[in-house]
Amino acid sequence: MLLPSHGSNPHYLYQSLQITQPEKIIDFSANINPLGPPPELKERWPDFFDLVNEYPDPRAGMLVNLISKSEELPEDRILVGNGGAELITLVARFLSGRKVLIIQPAFSEYEQACMSSGCRVTYHILEEGDWELRLEPLVPLLEQVDAVFICTPNNPTGVAFKEQSVLKLIKACQKHGVFTIIDEAFHDFLERDFSYASYIKDYSNLLILRSLTKMYAIPGLRLGYLLANPEIISQIKRYRPHWSVNSLALMAGEISLKDKVHVEKTKNLIRQQRYKLNGFYKNNNFIVSDSQVNFYLVRDSKKSDQLPLLRFLLQNGIVPRHTFNFPGLDGKWLRFAVKSERDNERLVEVFRQWRNHH
Amino acid sequence: MLLPSHGSNPHYLYQSLQITQPEKIIDFSANINPLGPPPELKERWPDFFDLVNEYPDPRAGMLVNLISKSEELPEDRILVGNGGAELITLVARFLSGRKVLIIQPAFSEYEQACMSSGCRVTYHILEEGDWELRLEPLVPLLEQVDAVFICTPNNPTGVAFKEQSVLKLIKACQKHGVFTIIDEAFHDFLERDFSYASYIKDYSNLLILRSLTKMYAIPGLRLGYLLANPEIISQIKRYRPHWSVNSLALMAGEISLKDKVHVEKTKNLIRQQRYKLNGFYKNNNFIVSDSQVNFYLVRDSKKSDQLPLLRFLLQNGIVPRHTFNFPGLDGKWLRFAVKSERDNERLVEVFRQWRNHH
Repeated sequence: MLLPSHGSNPHYLYQSLQITQPEKIIDFSANINPLGPPPELKERWPDFFDLVNEYPDPRAGMLVNLISKSEELPEDRILVGNGGAELITLVARFLSGRKVLIIQPAFSEYEQACMSSGCRVTYHILEEGDWELRLEPLVPLLEQVDAVFICTPNNPTGVAFKEQSVLKLIKACQKHGVFTIIDEAFHDFLERDFSYASYIKDYSNLLILRSLTKMYAIPGLRLGYLLANPEIISQIKRYRPHWSVNSLALMAGEISLKDKVHVEKTKNLIRQQRYKLNGFYKNNNFIVSDSQVNFYLVRDSKKSDQLPLLRFLLQNGIVPRHTFNFPGLDGKWLRFAVKSERDNERLVEVFRQWRNHH
Repeated sequence: MLLPSHGSNPHYLYQSLQITQPEKIIDFSANINPLGPPPELKERWPDFFDLVNEYPDPRAGMLVNLISKSEELPEDRILVGNGGAELITLVARFLSGRKVLIIQPAFSEYEQACMSSGCRVTYHILEEGDWELRLEPLVPLLEQVDAVFICTPNNPTGVAFKEQSVLKLIKACQKHGVFTIIDEAFHDFLERDFSYASYIKDYSNLLILRSLTKMYAIPGLRLGYLLANPEIISQIKRYRPHWSVNSLALMAGEISLKDKVHVEKTKNLIRQQRYKLNGFYKNNNFIVSDSQVNFYLVRDSKKSDQLPLLRFLLQNGIVPRHTFNFPGLDGKWLRFAVKSERDNERLVEVFRQWRNHH
């Protein structure tokens, strides 16, 4: 099924499926904080206009300094980029022509970027249902590759892999001279804040990808960063365009990283909403992934083909993320962001309508 | 002399030269429209906030459509990018490992990006003083290279090369199977609007780089585009990160391209100011490049070393662009943007003070 390869920009999905887009839609396809950006960003928005006419600091000095403090890592282990997508592209370029293993299902950009860099890409597909990271089948594969991409908390399942399993993987990779790239784009949605960033110091082959666009709801601005050892950072920096991160993203990042209250409020909302949604799904014969973050997978256990459900939702103004381009999911699941109470209630209402007739 | 490799962010220049930055400075080092962004951009700024929370359209559909109309070229010959710098990086990646000739002096990013892509870079240095494009010494070099970078109107000299010379170069390149990359970042400042874009249709090896950040004073947002034949565009597109252009830049581009009045006002101001400045320089023993756009080169004809002048200007709050990293200039000139009447008058005042003592 050839559908748009990402969430957001829902009109492309309606076009592809030849469904008329209703006047009012709710977009559950992008995993963005339902509370929106930190309040200070809105308050100071008029001041942001002056930044339009100023070249960005290509070194992102202030932001790198803030990240250095919050991550407790020296500045030479940090590279700020034009959103997670740019950093993935840069890492893929760093891996040009090498053999890359992607632990699937996962964000589709790793494969896209690696293919564009002439990498040979193979998959290790996790078991459907719990999508846990099991090392027995995985470790032998490390002898045949140069790098492993893993996303935890995982996009699209929402599952955070067991810490011990990921650590074993990092160690096994280091032993085999394999780069481990951990995408932590959603780590700050975890109830118990947890990251593999501190292992950067001990494992020279470890790269960590971070995004600021999800928690701080600034996907329109583009902002992310890479953590890795200084040699990798300086090599990858050479591939990055001068001024790749715009002035507004830099300022928004500086404001956002200081707002701890917004993060806590967000986590509380997500926890409450996910709990309510899970209850509904379980009582109504839908299967839900064991997500620990702000999105989850769903399927109607009564149907093998989920496409009619996807069409029904779209017709009723509910936009999920299809999963046709996630190896291991192949369209059998739908992904939804946890949104505001009101939006989630509307979602439940449409699911009820579906259940009444199916 | 190791100084920051670009204009703007003047504190880095003050730091490098160990000069205390005065409280009030005027930055002449970035070649940005002194009238600022189009008025509609400021008027609609409050609405821009909503875009922060929306993923950009990765296809830049609306903007590509507008550019297609203004350039009279089909949409598949257009690639929108995260500023000119990203497009240069992408073109350099397209040229990976090949032999590249840069017509110097020119914007330093061509070389940086080509080196990072493993290209072998050579120069053809134009004659200092008129910096005209002469084909006799240039054409024989084409047999030994795969691509030529040329910037016209030229940054840093401001000279627009003779149309016939550039056309001959394009033809000679096509004949030798050499890519011609013309950077037209400042073409819209020319009094008589002129571009080589229409030749894209006839010359499959021709690539044109455009920037929207100079005329529309949006360097903080990053926005540019590439014009080339569809095969080149689709190959280069593969190297670009998904969502490389942020939502605000896209909207700003759509607004800006419609504002013809702003462009005319800008050209009038630049013409008047350049005329006045030229008068001053010529009457006071400074040599000025024959610029046709919004910046120019200057040197004190009474001095062989311009570094004391650079230091004097900085101490007095005037920030020029040094030229130490422009091959063929090697610090012997200083580059200035044409700014507002008030700023230019202050510039002249400081130059007078210099002349009174030297």
